[in-house]
Amino acid sequence: MAWRSIGIFDSGVGGLTVLREVMHTLPQEDTLYFGDTARVPYGTKSPETVTRYAGEIASFLMKRDIKLLVVACNTVSAVALPALKRRLAIPVVGVIEPGARRAVEVSRSGKIGVIGTAGTIRSSAYTRAIKRLNPDAEVLTRACPLFVPLAEEGWTDNQVARLTAETYLRELKESAVDTLVLGCTHYPLLKQMIGDVMGSDVILVDSAEETARTVAAILGEKRLLRPAAEKGNHSYFVSDIPAGFVRVGNRFLGGRLGDVFQVTLDEEDGEV
Amino acid sequence: MAWRSIGIFDSGVGGLTVLREVMHTLPQEDTLYFGDTARVPYGTKSPETVTRYAGEIASFLMKRDIKLLVVACNTVSAVALPALKRRLAIPVVGVIEPGARRAVEVSRSGKIGVIGTAGTIRSSAYTRAIKRLNPDAEVLTRACPLFVPLAEEGWTDNQVARLTAETYLRELKESAVDTLVLGCTHYPLLKQMIGDVMGSDVILVDSAEETARTVAAILGEKRLLRPAAEKGNHSYFVSDIPAGFVRVGNRFLGGRLGDVFQVTLDEEDGEV
Repeated sequence: MAWRSIGIFDSGVGGLTVLREVMHTLPQEDTLYFGDTARVPYGTKSPETVTRYAGEIASFLMKRDIKLLVVACNTVSAVALPALKRRLAIPVVGVIEPGARRAVEVSRSGKIGVIGTAGTIRSSAYTRAIKRLNPDAEVLTRACPLFVPLAEEGWTDNQVARLTAETYLRELKESAVDTLVLGCTHYPLLKQMIGDVMGSDVILVDSAEETARTVAAILGEKRLLRPAAEKGNHSYFVSDIPAGFVRVGNRFLGGRLGDVFQVTLDEEDGEV
Repeated sequence: MAWRSIGIFDSGVGGLTVLREVMHTLPQEDTLYFGDTARVPYGTKSPETVTRYAGEIASFLMKRDIKLLVVACNTVSAVALPALKRRLAIPVVGVIEPGARRAVEVSRSGKIGVIGTAGTIRSSAYTRAIKRLNPDAEVLTRACPLFVPLAEEGWTDNQVARLTAETYLRELKESAVDTLVLGCTHYPLLKQMIGDVMGSDVILVDSAEETARTVAAILGEKRLLRPAAEKGNHSYFVSDIPAGFVRVGNRFLGGRLGDVFQVTLDEEDGEV
């Protein structure tokens, strides 16, 4: 019997950091990645629209017989996860819950920082997820809008990145959080710099890593893991011209991005 | 008789720098601004899609009886201007031609730099417009992807903006262009910094200013100018939630942004 793939999607290229961690944690697994490059960004769109788009992408991946779906997008994880879980008969894993759970586990003081895009921070999705797990936690948040373009530009260890990180993180540092959640799929590329600025006594929680760990745990529990001796294949689909996607994607995956196929989604699949 | 308005549109908030110059040059004129915030950015979309969106917006503004249409968006100016001009019975002014014309007029050496988004630079629209006017001109281009998020964040005169400008502009400065076209509607907010970095012997061409000058010239020629004693009214329409639009828009207009109305475009109006 053929082993089924893990499906992963994002509004664009950011989810590739989650794919990278899945490839690292489960190198034997086949993956299908979908980036909705024609309609990125999702953060400025209404919850109804985002839910419909997520439904279309889930249908596309389900037709390719995936065994688990990773929602590698903070916006979709914040607004459309319940709808996707209701509709799909396979496990669905978002990026917010794994990051929030890890933060609550590792924080000693209960003082947790969260950084993300303006949309993610405005949604309070991480704050709610953390408070559900530990109602006494104190959550401090900060939107860092320049981190995404810095990561896409490849400016992750120069003086511009350092000054930007120092400016954004100053208040979080001064308020002495002991844990900081990287609440955006682009931020793992700036992890080194963010760690330098925050100092070695602050634990960084990488949502991408935690999500990959959750995926491994669920597949293990359901006996859906492929034998570790195998080597996974990886396919990439996008909804619009992949020029920028290939350049930035190779940066995100360390040059290991394979062929990228442009596809058209069936809009009738959007009902969830 | 009621005086008709000037219609101005952009994919988002950037075109407000063009509106600002129109308000400055022609304070007596009423204006209608449309920002397609639901579908921004246009730079990653196909020419067919951008042309259809531009047609929908033009129809929306034409129903409000405008006397001239300003396409305050580099992407639309690059791909959809001929289609809009064919379809509309009023003058249509883009942002590329006025900037290119001014650059050719003021450059003594014929060595002209152009900066813009990755999409604008890739389209070569400014290079072609400049070469049409002066085939001997030498045009050097540089995409500056971080300038847009810096302008939206309001980081226009801090150390991050300075270092970013120095990095992007180094080669243009070394190759001794004597004129630099700000080929993106967001860039006028960084004009001071860009001027500091390039040095006082380089002439900056602000497409927004040149576009406003062109609008004044056309309306004067066609005897459509409102008497200078009047004071113009300004209306703002967007296609999605205007939260970020209001905050960034006030930054772009110096706090003078009025009420913003969210509207739905008629997709059947997109045929041009």
